[in-house]
Order: sequence, then structure tokens, then C-alpha cells
Amino acid sequence: MRLSILGSTGSIGRNTLQVVREMAGRVRPLALAAGRNVDELVPQILEFRPALVSVEDDGVRRRVLEALDQSALDAWRPEILTGQEGLLACVADVDCDAVVSAAVGVVGLPATYEAIRRGKRVALANKEVLVAAGELVMVAATASGAELLPVDSEHNALHQCLRAGRREEVDRLILTASGGPFRRTPASEMEAVTPEQALRHPTWKMGARITIDSSTMMNKGFEVIEACWLFGFGPERVQVVVHPQSIVHAMVEYRDGSVIAQLGPPDMKLPIRYALTDPDREQGPPERRLRWDAVRNLEFEPPDLARFPLLRLAYEAAESGGGAGCVLNAADEVAVAAFLDREIPYLGIPGVVEKTLERCGDRRPSTLSEVVALDREARAAAKEIAAAWAVAVG
Amino acid sequence: MRLSILGSTGSIGRNTLQVVREMAGRVRPLALAAGRNVDELVPQILEFRPALVSVEDDGVRRRVLEALDQSALDAWRPEILTGQEGLLACVADVDCDAVVSAAVGVVGLPATYEAIRRGKRVALANKEVLVAAGELVMVAATASGAELLPVDSEHNALHQCLRAGRREEVDRLILTASGGPFRRTPASEMEAVTPEQALRHPTWKMGARITIDSSTMMNKGFEVIEACWLFGFGPERVQVVVHPQSIVHAMVEYRDGSVIAQLGPPDMKLPIRYALTDPDREQGPPERRLRWDAVRNLEFEPPDLARFPLLRLAYEAAESGGGAGCVLNAADEVAVAAFLDREIPYLGIPGVVEKTLERCGDRRPSTLSEVVALDREARAAAKEIAAAWAVAVG
Repeated sequence: MRLSILGSTGSIGRNTLQVVREMAGRVRPLALAAGRNVDELVPQILEFRPALVSVEDDGVRRRVLEALDQSALDAWRPEILTGQEGLLACVADVDCDAVVSAAVGVVGLPATYEAIRRGKRVALANKEVLVAAGELVMVAATASGAELLPVDSEHNALHQCLRAGRREEVDRLILTASGGPFRRTPASEMEAVTPEQALRHPTWKMGARITIDSSTMMNKGFEVIEACWLFGFGPERVQVVVHPQSIVHAMVEYRDGSVIAQLGPPDMKLPIRYALTDPDREQGPPERRLRWDAVRNLEFEPPDLARFPLLRLAYEAAESGGGAGCVLNAADEVAVAAFLDREIPYLGIPGVVEKTLERCGDRRPSTLSEVVALDREARAAAKEIAAAWAVAVG
Repeated sequence: MRLSILGSTGSIGRNTLQVVREMAGRVRPLALAAGRNVDELVPQILEFRPALVSVEDDGVRRRVLEALDQSALDAWRPEILTGQEGLLACVADVDCDAVVSAAVGVVGLPATYEAIRRGKRVALANKEVLVAAGELVMVAATASGAELLPVDSEHNALHQCLRAGRREEVDRLILTASGGPFRRTPASEMEAVTPEQALRHPTWKMGARITIDSSTMMNKGFEVIEACWLFGFGPERVQVVVHPQSIVHAMVEYRDGSVIAQLGPPDMKLPIRYALTDPDREQGPPERRLRWDAVRNLEFEPPDLARFPLLRLAYEAAESGGGAGCVLNAADEVAVAAFLDREIPYLGIPGVVEKTLERCGDRRPSTLSEVVALDREARAAAKEIAAAWAVAVG
């Protein structure tokens, strides 16, 4: 299998390359796209020798070439492109069978869309693809026959649980949520939450934005929207259940009353490999196992929409469709950055998002460039709203 | 669908008829076989008007006919046969598509075997069929193409979980066990357990023998043997995990590290209906649902083979194959009866079973009548051993 990896230096990208190593020679990364992480990228280039590399801009490109000159033992060099053009080339200019879409943010959207349009298998880890452009993407996938295999552990689990029945036999999709560090925090104390507190995630180690999104349950809201698009269900049929141990990743309730759940160790390599090899399940290493030889308690409880308003806003965005998901994502990214910069308080995040949705949540983009434009418009609006908020609370 | 129900007045039989009612006219019970429960059987006959009825003996037959004379509003009467001949006729003399095998004990074995030999779908709830005659039964099913659909909630769950992958991708089957009322009882107190204590089951309401078998984990041992035959795995790949809430019925661990679990409310109508309608899943009633709107804790722990030696003996019987399962079942039934009659103490049950296995566990019956003969031999041996035990402790 020939692979393009969009976002090779992030957590999903690094785990993907570990899966490539596990699959010993059966997967070849033809193209690696990264942003600015030269230290991580250069050893990847030297190990996997991709034909094509893409980085953020010419400055990064120069640093990569310099590092290669210092490290490489031979004259071999990959082609190195930059920016959107580079990302697109990783999909369009190499003859890959599958694309791992793990570039973070709207920047990864056009290349992923192109991969879908070309009917490639897409191992999907970029949430913007479905949150911001779900309708366009699913229409393109249907037209081209592209397979969208989710890498996110929850959607990957749903994909697995859906094998136990037919689509029309499904009543509900159930996504589990760790609940984040504030699962038990009273509403009165949430106003004073600091970035340091919010950056502590109980189960998974992740980047800053996704950790904050997990603490606000925004992340779970995005997953609700993604599940709706990916599997073709309305938000009223996607339920969130808090499950702090993060062992059960998702469940599917069938109309006969049976619930099929997928459980697994918290290791992203499992869903990544599944996404690459489905419908096969290949032998994983012994450490990637759940053990049942000790006491294990799995707790479940309903989420508190009052304390986690971003989850409620996500359901509303899923219900209204159109550009609401795009605006939700853009506004949240801006609001989280403002919170991390101590410009707005923790509860300012849902506040900024809600006001941004009020201002531009009713747009209905019908092309990818309209989605990108709406993303830009929503960011500008959110920044304005966050700045006003900062002044008001400052 | 035309149905024969072997064991219509027991718990599985009554639940099956409730499922028949739910399926409003799409399932017709052509034959009902029962033992001696006239009060339960007569209303079933009047409601479902089967062509054929079978009861234990002529005395029961006369009581059924008298009751029908008093209750029936018209001259219609079913044919009523008796004994083994009657049970066999319920499979052989009516043109049924499926047979619900829920007669308790070895008595149900020949008719179930005949149904399998004839290639019918068999909804299997009689544990003797696989525990005592697994090899013969599976050979016959393979030859005839009969589908064996397990009604037992654990095996039914395994059947569902196995849909999420291919057989060669399965590493382990995991059966959950409630752990019974003595899950936390120290070994030193188990000697003094009374029939009254053992008859209290924490989750399911069941008959006396199966309740005792659940308290000793013998029942789970039988399920291990059944799972081995039904799904073609060695006992080393069937694991038991104690799960007191009985919400997760079973799990399948795939070689990639994914675990697929089936969860459901403790209602036998769910697996019964699944067994009748597979590969379809039909709409169940709203009360047959797991709810996630309140806190729910699911606990798991390894079983203690030292305190539950019958589970260990079952693994050994599964390992040795041949007639060991038949002897295990026969000896356990005798030992449980002796315990309920206060002839032997609670820990005498595994004692009697182990000694009976030592005496005749190495037989290798190669026909159904040899299985039935071994069952008789093992019962006689177990009775002798239990009587000696009673004298020794008396």
C-alpha cells in the first residue's frame, strides 16, 4: 500500500509511521506533509525516503534541506514543496492508494477533499473535514466511491460496531467521553478555571487545543457532528455518555435492544491500523491488549449540558447544518487561543462561540472555497467578539 | 416461520411464546412439547392451536385432554403424543422451519439432534446438546447445513460480536459471569452454604438447578464447553470474566487488540428473537433497552478457580473432550439434587463431580445412544459417590 501522510509530525502522523514500521514493508509512505516541525520531519524523511515532502513555507523548506545536507549519507533528496500547493501535490502528484488526513485545521481540508474526489481511501483524523465541510465531503465520497475510514478512536469504534448489523437496524450511536478534568467541578467553580487546570487531561495526552476542547466537551460536540456525517444519522440519534476510563470507545444500539460496544487500550495505533487495513484485522503487538486479570470498573453517566454548553451548541449546529459546523470550529479555535492567552476566562469560550454562531452560523457554503471563506469570516468575527469580551472582563 | 418448541412451559418456552406474540402472525408454533406442567400448557394450546403436542406420559396426556374439554369453546383438538416418541414427532412429523430446543436435560437431546440432522434452524437453549454431545452435534450440523443459533445470552452475545470480524481474526472469546451469590464469600465459609443461600441469585430468576449451577460457576463451565463447540475454539481461547451487573453478556477479542462486546437488558426475549430472525434485527419494544441517563457502573474481575473448582473441572473436561462433558453434566445434576436434598454439603458438589469424572470421564461415545448410555452410567456412578459422601459426612 502506498501512502500519503498529511500531518506526519503530529501525534497521529507519528503513530501512523509507527504502524508503517509494524507493517514491515507492506506500506510505503510516498509523501509526507508537515508544518514547521523540522526536528521531527528530517529523521522521518531519512527513514522513509518519501518521493515528495511538503512543508509550511520556503523558510521551513530551507531548514529541512540544510538538515538533510548535514544528516544524509548520500545525495538522495526528496522533492520539497510548500503551502497549500505542496499539500495538494501530496495527494495529486504521487500515485498513492490511501491518504492519512491528519493535518490540523482547515489547512488540511482542500487536499483531503481532493483525495476523496479521486476515490482514494482516506484515513481521517482531521476533524475540520467533516465538521466544517461534511456535506460537500460526503457528496464527493459518494460520487467517487472513496472510503472514509475514521481514525478517531470513537468513530473507529462506531465503524467496528456497525459491522454487527445493517444500517437500517441501528437506533442510536453512542459516543463515550472522558468527561475531562471538570467532570465533577461545580458550575460555580468553572468560571475561575485556569489554562493550567484545563490543560490537564485525565486519560489521553494530546495537543493544547484538543485538550482544552476535551475539557469543555467541545471535542465531543465535534465528534457528534462528524458521526452524523460519517454514518448518515441525525444528531437526535447520536448520544454522548461520559465514561471516564476511556476503555469503551463507542457503542451502537440496534433496534432489537442489543448494544454492541468496542473496547480497546488507549493507543491510537489500533484505529490507525484498522483504518489502513479494513476489512482485515491484522495481528497487533501483545502490549496493545486489554487485560481482564485484575479488577476493572467502567463507569458511565450522562453529560451535564448545563455545565458543558459547547456540547449543546454542537448539537444545535448539527441540527441546523449548512455552515454552522464550520463557524463552530473556527470560533472555538479562536476562543481557545484567547483563553490560553488569558484574554478571556474559561466560560468565555462558549460565550464567544455562541455569539459567533449568532452572527454567522446561518451561512450555507456550497463550495469548498466558500467553506474556507466562511472559516475566515467566522475567525474574524470570533476575534472581534473575544476582544470585546476581554475588554469587558479585563 | 413455522416453529416447533421443545420445552414450551419452561422459562425459555414461555419467553419464546411471548416473542411469537410480538412477531404478530409471522411465526406460527406448529408443535409444543412440554413435560408435566398442564396448567401452563393448556392455555398455550388454546391460544396457539398447535397441530401437535407432546407431554411426558399418558397420565399427563389425559389431564391435558380433560382440561381442554373444560376450556375449549369448540371441538378442535391437537394430536397429543408422549415421551421420546412425542418429542421426536415434534421435529419429524410437522413441517417446521425452526426448532426451539429448550427441553431441560438429556431428554431433549435426540429430538434436537434430529432437527439438526434435518438441516433446520435450531434456536438452542438446551445445554446438554453441546455439553454432552457437542462433537456429534457439530458434525451433524456441518453435514446438514443446519444453523445453530444460541439462545443463551452469553453465546448469543458471542454470535453478535463475531459479526465484527472474521473467524481467523479472533483471538479470544470472553464470557461474563455474574459470579453468583458467593462471589465475595471466603473459602472457609463455603463449606457451610445452605440450599437457601445458594438459591438466591443476584441477577437472573431461574430454576433451582441452574441457580445452584450459577452459584458454583458450573453453569459458566458448561458455557465454556458450549462456546468451544459452537464457535470452534479450544478452551484455552475461551476466558471467563466475572461481571456482577450482567449487562455485558460476552466479548470477543480480535487479534488487532479490539474487543467487541454485546450489552443488553437481562431479558431472554432479546436473544430468543435474535435466534429466530438472524441475520435480521427486528424492532424490539421500548422497555427492552439499556438506559444511559443515570450513573451505571460495570465491574469486571477474574474468577477464582480455587473457590470455584467446577469451573476448573469444566476447562479440564473441555480439554479432554470425548464423553467428559456428558459425565460432567450428569454428575453435576446428581450432585446438585443431593445437595438440595441436604444429603451432601455444598462443597460436596464439586467433590462428587470430580470423583465421577475420575471414574468414567475417559469414555468416548461415538453415537447418540452411546451418549445417552454414558449419561445413565455417569448418573448411577454419581449417585453412588454422593451416597457414600452422605454417609461419610452424615
